[in-house]
Amino acid sequence: MIDELKLLGALPGIFKADPSVTIPPGDDCAEFVGASGERYLAAADQLIEGVHFDADTPPELAGKKLLNRNLSDIAAMGGTPCWALLTLAANGKSSEYLLDFCRGVASEAAKWHVSVIGGDCAALDKPGVAATLTIIGKSPASGAVRRSGAKVGDRIYVSGKIGNSYRSGRHLTFQPRLKEGAFLAANHLATAMLDVSDGLLLDAKRLASESHVAIEIDVKRVPLHEDAALPQALSDGEDYELLFTTSVENLEKVWGKELAPVTCIGRCIPGNGEIIDASGMAIEGLDLGYVH
Amino acid sequence: MIDELKLLGALPGIFKADPSVTIPPGDDCAEFVGASGERYLAAADQLIEGVHFDADTPPELAGKKLLNRNLSDIAAMGGTPCWALLTLAANGKSSEYLLDFCRGVASEAAKWHVSVIGGDCAALDKPGVAATLTIIGKSPASGAVRRSGAKVGDRIYVSGKIGNSYRSGRHLTFQPRLKEGAFLAANHLATAMLDVSDGLLLDAKRLASESHVAIEIDVKRVPLHEDAALPQALSDGEDYELLFTTSVENLEKVWGKELAPVTCIGRCIPGNGEIIDASGMAIEGLDLGYVH
Repeated sequence: MIDELKLLGALPGIFKADPSVTIPPGDDCAEFVGASGERYLAAADQLIEGVHFDADTPPELAGKKLLNRNLSDIAAMGGTPCWALLTLAANGKSSEYLLDFCRGVASEAAKWHVSVIGGDCAALDKPGVAATLTIIGKSPASGAVRRSGAKVGDRIYVSGKIGNSYRSGRHLTFQPRLKEGAFLAANHLATAMLDVSDGLLLDAKRLASESHVAIEIDVKRVPLHEDAALPQALSDGEDYELLFTTSVENLEKVWGKELAPVTCIGRCIPGNGEIIDASGMAIEGLDLGYVH
Repeated sequence: MIDELKLLGALPGIFKADPSVTIPPGDDCAEFVGASGERYLAAADQLIEGVHFDADTPPELAGKKLLNRNLSDIAAMGGTPCWALLTLAANGKSSEYLLDFCRGVASEAAKWHVSVIGGDCAALDKPGVAATLTIIGKSPASGAVRRSGAKVGDRIYVSGKIGNSYRSGRHLTFQPRLKEGAFLAANHLATAMLDVSDGLLLDAKRLASESHVAIEIDVKRVPLHEDAALPQALSDGEDYELLFTTSVENLEKVWGKELAPVTCIGRCIPGNGEIIDASGMAIEGLDLGYVH
């Protein structure tokens, strides 16, 4: 297992960004700006057999998941996905398996008007599949929503329901919250946002750290899937719901009827990255989440 | 081994592109256009231990190769590279190994003013490394140079020297021909272009097929590295030199002194994808190249 956090921590010192990079690595997407001032979002994600999906997963579902994980990153900035590049490395798989994987990507891409514009296909030296997808999108005209904008007093919300995503198979069939993210951005409703990929508590902690606040969560209010149980639901990850803060008091009143429901689960209080239970206890005993 | 050609052949039927895609998959890069008319190039490539580099290759060199393979794709369109996204999947490697890989990417990125703006790091389920890089660049103002523009009567040129790239280690240390590609595009000198990644003959055949011409190659004129021997040099691949056609009679006369030298190795004749030796024989006995 890679010490990913150590690796990621070292990367800002290794990679230098020039002024065309308006949001550097570290958020759900980076943002870059073209000569005419147009702003674009970009993110890359991987899907590896035996890590992110099982060998008996239908390849079409694995392909859908790969694209939708990336779309979820665009959603978390409030953006619109446009173009994607796909790479496949495989060994011991038939052409039909790989075509079905591509068909899964293609069917979701068509749904969201994303054009798959390129990629690469290569042999892996050991049996398995490693796929990657890079998504390029457009920033919302109102500005991309970052992780760092939450203020003391803001409410924190989560979309949909969470928990037990992997075992239930929902990690293969979730809907990226693109409409919800775009609605929040266009109406200036979210002060900070990310998607719940590594566990609600860990992702909440990231938002709190980037925003230099603490977050008090009333875990009883966290909307759980029927088959999910606390505390695993708080740290399982792979939910791909939006977690965001807002300064609006009753967001439900302005929330679009056609959108996935949102639930207030807590608020931002003074602090610097702490996650605190509404009873006033710091949440430390729980495994905060799983870094995939 | 994946039947890559069969797979790639099926992909155009699977993936639908919208009008924002001005050059679809199939060239060295795809091109997309933003709302203000700015044109961007994008390509993705992989580097897999045991396939594209050996386990004892210094990781910094492997990282350099990964970026430079992608820069070579931008060069082949005459473009300028700007932004990159890197993914790493690894098992059995130390953080230091992976950081050195990133440092290799970073040092070449700095040289060419490319900002690495994002990516992902994940565990592989079996020992090894699979890395990908997506490059995003700007199209030349004069228009991207495609594979399909060669006309009967055009000369065909290759930059630098070719052959024996893998065994000599040059596949790790080559310089992407960005200056040469940009010079050709800016001065409207190239009618068609690609980079030699899978072997001179195979890549020439691709250019000929896309342009609906045949290409007559005088193999004696092909500039070989001192340690390279025909016919392997013609099919080895991994040269990352530019192969291009031009309607200019004596390109050498207008060629920039600071650029890598170019050598005329043949001409375009009526046909449809055939590669013919200057002696008039179709080159068929040779292994045309290696699809990585």
